[in-house]
Amino acid sequence: MKIDSIDMYYLRMPEVLDIGDGSQDMLLVRVEADGSVGWGECEASPLTTIASFVTPLSHSACHGVRDSVIGQRLDTPADIVRIAARVRAKSVDLLQAEHALSGIEIAMWDLLGRVREQPVWTLLGQERAYPKTPYASSLFGNTPQDTFAKACAVRELGYRAAKFGWGPYGLGSVAVDADHVNAAREGLGSEGILLVDAGTVFGEDVEAAALRLPALEAAGVVWLEEPFISGALRSYRALSGMTRTVKLAGGEGAHNPQMAELMIDHGGIGFVQIDTGRIGGIADAARVARYAQSAGVRFVNHTFTSHLALSASLQPFAGAAHDGICEYPVESQALARGATTSRIDLGADGTISVPDGPGLGLEVDIKALAPYLVDVEIVVDATTLFRSATLRA
Amino acid sequence: MKIDSIDMYYLRMPEVLDIGDGSQDMLLVRVEADGSVGWGECEASPLTTIASFVTPLSHSACHGVRDSVIGQRLDTPADIVRIAARVRAKSVDLLQAEHALSGIEIAMWDLLGRVREQPVWTLLGQERAYPKTPYASSLFGNTPQDTFAKACAVRELGYRAAKFGWGPYGLGSVAVDADHVNAAREGLGSEGILLVDAGTVFGEDVEAAALRLPALEAAGVVWLEEPFISGALRSYRALSGMTRTVKLAGGEGAHNPQMAELMIDHGGIGFVQIDTGRIGGIADAARVARYAQSAGVRFVNHTFTSHLALSASLQPFAGAAHDGICEYPVESQALARGATTSRIDLGADGTISVPDGPGLGLEVDIKALAPYLVDVEIVVDATTLFRSATLRA
Repeated sequence: MKIDSIDMYYLRMPEVLDIGDGSQDMLLVRVEADGSVGWGECEASPLTTIASFVTPLSHSACHGVRDSVIGQRLDTPADIVRIAARVRAKSVDLLQAEHALSGIEIAMWDLLGRVREQPVWTLLGQERAYPKTPYASSLFGNTPQDTFAKACAVRELGYRAAKFGWGPYGLGSVAVDADHVNAAREGLGSEGILLVDAGTVFGEDVEAAALRLPALEAAGVVWLEEPFISGALRSYRALSGMTRTVKLAGGEGAHNPQMAELMIDHGGIGFVQIDTGRIGGIADAARVARYAQSAGVRFVNHTFTSHLALSASLQPFAGAAHDGICEYPVESQALARGATTSRIDLGADGTISVPDGPGLGLEVDIKALAPYLVDVEIVVDATTLFRSATLRA
Repeated sequence: MKIDSIDMYYLRMPEVLDIGDGSQDMLLVRVEADGSVGWGECEASPLTTIASFVTPLSHSACHGVRDSVIGQRLDTPADIVRIAARVRAKSVDLLQAEHALSGIEIAMWDLLGRVREQPVWTLLGQERAYPKTPYASSLFGNTPQDTFAKACAVRELGYRAAKFGWGPYGLGSVAVDADHVNAAREGLGSEGILLVDAGTVFGEDVEAAALRLPALEAAGVVWLEEPFISGALRSYRALSGMTRTVKLAGGEGAHNPQMAELMIDHGGIGFVQIDTGRIGGIADAARVARYAQSAGVRFVNHTFTSHLALSASLQPFAGAAHDGICEYPVESQALARGATTSRIDLGADGTISVPDGPGLGLEVDIKALAPYLVDVEIVVDATTLFRSATLRA
């Protein structure tokens, strides 16, 4: 097959609020090759990513991403890896390119899986897909009482694990943060797996993060996620030396596998969290999953929008029995919930199954998405470089 | 002062070729606060960076960069640091934001220096600016004979140091690469400081890079730059253990100070090369310069466009007597050469002086740049988010 066209669709809710809810907009990618179609999603700023796709040439190491993909052969998994390497080599100096690549790469896997009538995780060489225990990913409430109510609700929905993050955490006193963590534990019950996401709130400040450790450990929190900004590995390493039971988690900001591997090598993390919609796609995430396993670090997906993105994020470690928990968005907007005609539902036993249909195993719901489509036009020196296309199957 | 407006100007040569010459286009940034103006330059894909500046909100950690800067107070260096932190916090998930921030941050320093009638390096707390020995930064020729001719020309222009890079290096045989290096040494003369830039050509392949070491060491090459892609620090570290005299150099891809510090901590590099137009600006580059000094690693600027960008790249280590060499573009296009009314010229002794005028010490040449201005229009849901403004002083 030859890649004939790539469409990027910017979709958003009628109102986008300045809150920590990443499901308010979406950048869907449709790749077509010889009449076959695959879908992916970039976990990225839609307009910026579209610009990185169509931007005019700056020099040989700063191509628009489109230049490296259109017209390429796509017949095997090795072609996907080759095309991704080509994008990176020709866009060394285009920072946003790795976010753009991610959605395109995912769509190429979906396309190839559909053509071969195999799930992506099979194409990756995994013999079976193990069920995962999803943790409900929620924002902390505005007050400990709100957090308690949210934790009760999550438990009642059947989740065995829950993560609370962002919101007020780290912005107020150590005591109030402890109250939030205790409220979450109380609401979730003593058996539930409790995770906390600090959302990089401590910057590089080890001491501020360390002050929260006693409450986290007393509440039996399994991991403290992103206490620091991506790349602040001296801070990660220092904090990891101060913990007794809680592990550090991070990696969602990794936009290439090397960044994630550096966290594993030098950050003292116990869990590496990879977003296939940012790191460069499914193959790069699978590389990190293998590396993590060799280093004794647990791999977890990172995802917060549609179930298409969720499925993509599960493929790289579907076959890893030892990596048993997964992120699973529970507070998504209608846009994200409606993006696919079916969803990856929580089973009665509190686990989910990675789809076993071809490709990513889900169908994009064109009709449901159409009302959310944003009209974008980019014109450079009187040439229209991009104009939103109509959504098509 | 309050930041009233920020203009981004995309400029380019009439024809942009698919060659390793990064001076074929430019993204200039003009910041205005209470009637005072400062200029900066992003070393970045212009259209993509403009999009990252104006993009609509996705969520609280994915703001367009504009949201975090317009209306902010700008009275002291601490304000610049505060605004940069604000951009990073509100654009955690917008990869291109750090490239956009870089040019804005530089323009804020220029503005503050002009208002205070002090050079930026003084505002950074440096007591004096030491002359630097510029290395002429050139591409390898297509043949060793071409490389020889280029090296002779650089020597005749009065340079005491030269760097050759990209072009055919690493793409053909080890023997041909050695011929290029030997030709460069021969043309430059035995006394000249010779540097080689592999332009990430070896990816993560330590063995391929190691095969080039004997020729580099025999020719007395001071550094081998970017043998590997940014972040491939295991490869850097491994290669650094195989060298005898040549040092490794890298860091131009760093888009935040943490990335550069990781290279220093774990890459085994002898020189860290920082582009102020990418890393987040002048304060972040200065942070890396201080860290490098504490770690016994030499700091060098990275730059390849206008003398405005060159001046910005020199400010962070102007006062570092021990960091004596600097990058200096010699093959720039007319656009880059004409961007300022005066330039930082090579002295008879083969050194250059960091400007001692206010701010960056150079004036943008509005008239000379006007013909190169690219007309950009970005429209989202019938709202014009960006339309190129007229160049104004």
